[in-house]
Amino acid sequence: MRTTVGIIGAGPAGLLLARLLHNAGIDSVVLESRDRAYVERRQRAGILEQGTADVLRAAGAGERMDREGLRHDGIELRFDRTRHRVDFPGLTGGRSVMVYAQTEVCKDLIALQLREGGPLLFEAEALAVEDAGTDAPRIRFRHEGREDVLECSYVVGCDGFWGVARKAIPAGLTQVFERTYPFGWLGILADVPPSHDELVYARHDRGFALLSMRSPAVSRLYLQVADGTDPGAWDDEEIWDELERRFETDDDWYLQRGPITQKTVTPMRSYVHEPMRHGRLFLAGDAAHIVPPTGAKGLNLAAGDVVTFARALIHRQETGSPELLDAYSRTCLRRVWQAERFSYDMTTLLHRAPGATAFEDRLQLARLERIASSRAAETDLAEAYTGFPFGPAGE
Amino acid sequence: MRTTVGIIGAGPAGLLLARLLHNAGIDSVVLESRDRAYVERRQRAGILEQGTADVLRAAGAGERMDREGLRHDGIELRFDRTRHRVDFPGLTGGRSVMVYAQTEVCKDLIALQLREGGPLLFEAEALAVEDAGTDAPRIRFRHEGREDVLECSYVVGCDGFWGVARKAIPAGLTQVFERTYPFGWLGILADVPPSHDELVYARHDRGFALLSMRSPAVSRLYLQVADGTDPGAWDDEEIWDELERRFETDDDWYLQRGPITQKTVTPMRSYVHEPMRHGRLFLAGDAAHIVPPTGAKGLNLAAGDVVTFARALIHRQETGSPELLDAYSRTCLRRVWQAERFSYDMTTLLHRAPGATAFEDRLQLARLERIASSRAAETDLAEAYTGFPFGPAGE
Repeated sequence: MRTTVGIIGAGPAGLLLARLLHNAGIDSVVLESRDRAYVERRQRAGILEQGTADVLRAAGAGERMDREGLRHDGIELRFDRTRHRVDFPGLTGGRSVMVYAQTEVCKDLIALQLREGGPLLFEAEALAVEDAGTDAPRIRFRHEGREDVLECSYVVGCDGFWGVARKAIPAGLTQVFERTYPFGWLGILADVPPSHDELVYARHDRGFALLSMRSPAVSRLYLQVADGTDPGAWDDEEIWDELERRFETDDDWYLQRGPITQKTVTPMRSYVHEPMRHGRLFLAGDAAHIVPPTGAKGLNLAAGDVVTFARALIHRQETGSPELLDAYSRTCLRRVWQAERFSYDMTTLLHRAPGATAFEDRLQLARLERIASSRAAETDLAEAYTGFPFGPAGE
Repeated sequence: MRTTVGIIGAGPAGLLLARLLHNAGIDSVVLESRDRAYVERRQRAGILEQGTADVLRAAGAGERMDREGLRHDGIELRFDRTRHRVDFPGLTGGRSVMVYAQTEVCKDLIALQLREGGPLLFEAEALAVEDAGTDAPRIRFRHEGREDVLECSYVVGCDGFWGVARKAIPAGLTQVFERTYPFGWLGILADVPPSHDELVYARHDRGFALLSMRSPAVSRLYLQVADGTDPGAWDDEEIWDELERRFETDDDWYLQRGPITQKTVTPMRSYVHEPMRHGRLFLAGDAAHIVPPTGAKGLNLAAGDVVTFARALIHRQETGSPELLDAYSRTCLRRVWQAERFSYDMTTLLHRAPGATAFEDRLQLARLERIASSRAAETDLAEAYTGFPFGPAGE
C-alpha cells in the first residue's frame, strides 16, 4: 500500500489532518489501532479554542459543532469566597471558546472521512516507522491478522504519548522535558444539567475543583485528588459533598446532583519531545507533548500541529519549497511552550500542592487577586485561554 | 519624654513618616540605634516607584531627587540572545520610575528633619515596646549611656527585620510567611559610567545579572551567586568577566570597566509578618516584610506603609474615626502581597535555581518570550514595576 501521507492514529489530530489534506487534494491513509466504537466513546477534552473551532469550520467539519456546541464567553474563578468572571470577548477583542467534546469532534471527522475521504483503517496497529530519515519512510502495521507496510512520502505520528512514531527519532537527536504533578483529577460525567452556564475554576484549601459540561444535559466535574487515587474509592455522594465544599455553594448558588455515569482519575503531566520532526517523520499532538488539563490546551495544540503540517506540505507542493516543512518543529514548539507555560501556571495557580507552605498559599491568592484586579493580568489569561495563534503564517 | 508618635528607626520609612507627620502638624520622635554617618552611608535600594517619588515631592523632600535622580522610562530584559525593552510610560499611561539611591533619600530627609522637624536621636537604641495593647504604649531605649522611656500615643516600628518592634506583638496573634532562596546577589559599586542608560536584567544559563546605576558616574552591578558566597572570593577581573558572559556583550554593546569601590553579598528572602498592627503599635517596612531585591520593591513598600499610617492618623485626628487606623494592616498587606508576588515572580523568572530541570529552564524562556510578545503580559510587568497604588484612599 502506498500514500502521500501516512497518518498514525485516528484521534482528533490524525482525523483533522486527513480532512485538511483531503480538502487540498493530497491523499493520505489513517491507521488506528482501536476499533471505531472505542474511538467514538473515548472521553477527553471539551474546550475548543476560537482558532480550533475556526479550523474545523473551514475544513467543513463544523456543522454539528455550531449546532450543538456551546459558545462560552468567559469562565469564573472562585477563591477565598470571591467569584470573579473573566470576560473573554471583552478582553481579547471578541474571542471566545466552544464547549464541544473531543469525542464529538472525532465522530464528525470519522463520518466525513468514511463518506468522502481516503482510507481510514480501524484495528490497524502501527508497529514501527522505518526509514524516517529517507525520502521513502514506511509504516509497518498489523491489520486483520497480518502484517503489512504502508509506503509513504511523509509520515505523521498522531499516535499519542504511548505511540510508536516518536520512537523512530534517534534518541541521540532528541531532548525530553518533563514534569509530573503529585495530584490528579477525579473526573465524573453526570446526567444533570450543569449548575452554571460557564466553566467554574475553584481554588480551595481542600484542593482544586472544576465545573464543566458536555452538553446542556450532561455535567462534567472534576476534583483534585492525590496521585494514584482509585476512582472506586469515592462513592457518588462523597463526590458531590466534596464538590460542594470546594465550590463553597450557598443559597444563591448550589450544585444540582444527578446520576454519575462515569468516574475516572487522570494523572497530571507536562511533557515535551524535541524536535517534533525527523526527516520525513512529523509528530503531532500528544505524540510530542502533554499538558495538564487545567488549561484545556491538549486538543488545541494537536489542531495547531496538524494545521502547521498541512500548510507546510501544501506550500511545498505549490512552490516546491521545503521551508515551512523544515520550520515545522520550530513553528509548533513556540506555540507548544506557550501552552506548556499557561497549563503549568493555571495548574499551580489553582491546585493545592501537598506540602505547600503558608507563603505559597498566599502567593496563590495574591495571583488570583491580581487577575481579578488588573485588566492586563486578566487579559494575559484570557488571550492564552482563548488561544495562541497557529503560527507565523497566521490563522 | 513624651510624643504623639514614637518612631523606631531612621531608615527611609521612619524618616519619611516623621516628615509626613511634621507636615500635618503631628509631633513625633525618631529613635535610631546607629550614628548619622552610618545611616547616610548604608547602601540599599535605588529605584523609586512613581508613587514614592510623588510622595517625596509632596512632602517637600523631592528637590535634590528631581535634580540628581535619573528618570527611567523602561528596563531591558536579556535572555537567549534576545534584548527586549519594556516601555513603562507607553504601557502604563505615562508612569515611570526614578533611580535615586535610598541612601540619598535618607540624607535629604535627615537634613530636613534636623532643620525643621521634631527630635531625631542617633545612637538611641530601642530596647522594647511596652504596653502596645493599651492607649499609652512606651518605647524603652538607651541613649548616651542611660536608659530612658518615650511615652507615646502611637508607636511605629520602622526598625527593620532585626528590630524590636515586631517582638511586642504576641506570638499567639501573629503568623509568619517565609521563603528563602538558594542564591544571593554579589553587588558591586564601581566608579564608571553605567554602560547602558536603563537597567538591564539578564537571564543566563550561568545565572542572573543586573546592570544598574547610582548616578551618571557610578555603576551598580549584580551577579547571582550561591547562597553564602564570600564577596572576597571574587576578584575584580573575575567579576567583570562573569558580568560580560551573562550580559552576552558583543561589539555593539560592551561593559565599561572601572574601579570597584564596594563588594557585598545580599541573601534573598521573602518574609511577611501578619498582622502589621497590634493595638497602638504599627509595623512599617522591613520590620513587617522582606522582598528579594529583584523587583526593587523594598523601599517602595516601606513608603506605602508610612503613607498609609500617616493618612490614617490624620483621618483620626480630623474626624475622630479610627476606621483607617483599624484598617492599616489589611490595607498595607494587600499591597505587600502583590509586591511579594511580583518580587517572587521576577526572581524565579530570571535566576537559575540550583537543580532546575530542563523543563523549568524552558518554562523560564517561555515566560520571557510571553512578556516580549504579549502587550498584556508586558503591561502586567510594567504596572507592577512602576508601582501598585498606595491603598484604597488613592495616591
